Amino acid sequence: MVITHPADVRWLSGFTGSNAAVALVGGRGRLFTDGRYTAQAKEEVQGLAVTIATKPVAQEACGWLEKAGAGSCGFDSAVTSVAALETMKTAISGKMRRGFFRAAPGIVARLREIKDDAEISAMRRAALLGCRVYEEMLSVIEAGMTEIEVAAELEYRARKAGAEAMSFDTIVASGVRGGLPHGIATGKRLARGEMVTLDFGVILGGYCSDMTRTVYLNRSVRFSPLEAEQKRAFDNVLEAQIAAVSAVRSGISCADVDEAARGVLRSAGFEKEFSHSTGHGVGLEIHESPRVGAKQAQKLESGMVITIEPGVYMPGKYGIRIEDTVLVTKTGCEVLTPSAKSWVEL
Amino acid sequence: MVITHPADVRWLSGFTGSNAAVALVGGRGRLFTDGRYTAQAKEEVQGLAVTIATKPVAQEACGWLEKAGAGSCGFDSAVTSVAALETMKTAISGKMRRGFFRAAPGIVARLREIKDDAEISAMRRAALLGCRVYEEMLSVIEAGMTEIEVAAELEYRARKAGAEAMSFDTIVASGVRGGLPHGIATGKRLARGEMVTLDFGVILGGYCSDMTRTVYLNRSVRFSPLEAEQKRAFDNVLEAQIAAVSAVRSGISCADVDEAARGVLRSAGFEKEFSHSTGHGVGLEIHESPRVGAKQAQKLESGMVITIEPGVYMPGKYGIRIEDTVLVTKTGCEVLTPSAKSWVEL
Repeated sequence: MVITHPADVRWLSGFTGSNAAVALVGGRGRLFTDGRYTAQAKEEVQGLAVTIATKPVAQEACGWLEKAGAGSCGFDSAVTSVAALETMKTAISGKMRRGFFRAAPGIVARLREIKDDAEISAMRRAALLGCRVYEEMLSVIEAGMTEIEVAAELEYRARKAGAEAMSFDTIVASGVRGGLPHGIATGKRLARGEMVTLDFGVILGGYCSDMTRTVYLNRSVRFSPLEAEQKRAFDNVLEAQIAAVSAVRSGISCADVDEAARGVLRSAGFEKEFSHSTGHGVGLEIHESPRVGAKQAQKLESGMVITIEPGVYMPGKYGIRIEDTVLVTKTGCEVLTPSAKSWVEL
Repeated sequence: MVITHPADVRWLSGFTGSNAAVALVGGRGRLFTDGRYTAQAKEEVQGLAVTIATKPVAQEACGWLEKAGAGSCGFDSAVTSVAALETMKTAISGKMRRGFFRAAPGIVARLREIKDDAEISAMRRAALLGCRVYEEMLSVIEAGMTEIEVAAELEYRARKAGAEAMSFDTIVASGVRGGLPHGIATGKRLARGEMVTLDFGVILGGYCSDMTRTVYLNRSVRFSPLEAEQKRAFDNVLEAQIAAVSAVRSGISCADVDEAARGVLRSAGFEKEFSHSTGHGVGLEIHESPRVGAKQAQKLESGMVITIEPGVYMPGKYGIRIEDTVLVTKTGCEVLTPSAKSWVEL
């Protein structure tokens, strides 16, 4: 097998560079990277020999595999481009090439779903750092700031506390912009009477955290009919989120967890307004398998780490999303992001 | 043709969501995205009809294409996974499927190489914001700070000034860590007598900036033999960088620009220590074509925006890199990152 997806390579070898391939055959393995990473590979890679490649790394890996006696090569068709596969084929001698490469989508991704103790401990630390930053932000956020300023303050606190990077572009979506489920922070100013959704994550020890809270900016705003509507929607999202978290345990299907949240929002009349899946796996990458969606028959297993993040999006009006990251256990789950998630007025 | 790479989709349609496909046939075009982006697509997409897909977007795009009478479909084999192509094939009726899909690697990427006036103006603004942040950092950086703290201060200033995001994980590599060409910021503390490499970029209006400066931390450090060695290497990198910038003009090959830098470092005895290409295109993505490397015969054209970033990496000792982003013109280039790049002692 040849593995090229950076997170898979890191998980297998410890190597964090951006360009590498791991070849595995029988009991042997070798990592291929380029000249930029000579020193870094020596420092990081454990348990594998290292070759500094002069040709594309996947090509050299395949050539080595054939020389080592492999009769075929698995590759992850989900993350290997059509052009990359063509390049890999050029490394194999003509008579061997036919049928040499076999699509094996997501094999390492599947192994990565179940986190071991060291990974869980890294994810707990990342998640708690995220919570600390969120809680600090409650005394920072105020009407008049732009969404980008809120993101700047949040990211600054995360980085000062040691985050290696943010897991993804921080989402700060206020008022009508909350109606866009994935709008990143913009120059829009926060105003009283608006809901503000913060969706962000930090990376610690290579592992991503992910959490979302939606708060209400009301200090001394006069009563508006929108306020009651937003409060009702918030209560429904929170109920849906808690229902799904409560449903999580080893053995339940992803679809059933999704339905626990979706059913609540359907009953409340928000079926159409909850326009995405309930959650996803998280680890070295911010989006990993399993997907926690309506059509996913896959069963949860102890050691998986997933998000639970139902939301309601009212285009042109407001949006609400509440998200925790949870560790699946035999009897339920451990919420890794224990920040309060009830209605907050700032 | 069906286009799925997010930056290509954005360039063609204005849509900034993470999941979309554009189908083009004859004079007609249509964008496919999912339910999360209903409002956003309505707001952003210009000149194309929009379909909210329920199946994978590329699959629906291919189905539409066949119905619209297309006899074949180009796809970008460099960014389409083997599995994604299989999914696209399922949309095409059996008798049409054979030979329907044709690899067309990098067609939109090639179009994106030449920036128009609006793009150039966005890139100028992004680059100048990067310069302003770098110049502010000169009075912030001091011995005793961790690399991550330096990154935190830098990113905070960038965000407060309106950056939508950073172009990539900020690199702060001090002392021996400078010997790793692509080490991101860590908990290592900056010490006197060390070179510190800052490599970062900001995103404004969707466009990335990219610049690198290496400064020396010496305030009252006692003379060390390493200082003279670092100063000599710095002078050589600077000479190489200026030589390559001076070589840039419409019509010259990327290989010749690379050689302008590489030749200087070769003469100075640093051939092996300059272990990467001289530069790369930049735009909506931080790494775009063309590649400015030793084997690239491609010729530069007016309107291309590329980086020029030679470096010298001494494993276990120090590293130096100096990088500008430049706009190729008929007679030379415009340096978009005009911050001073001569020897700086902090």
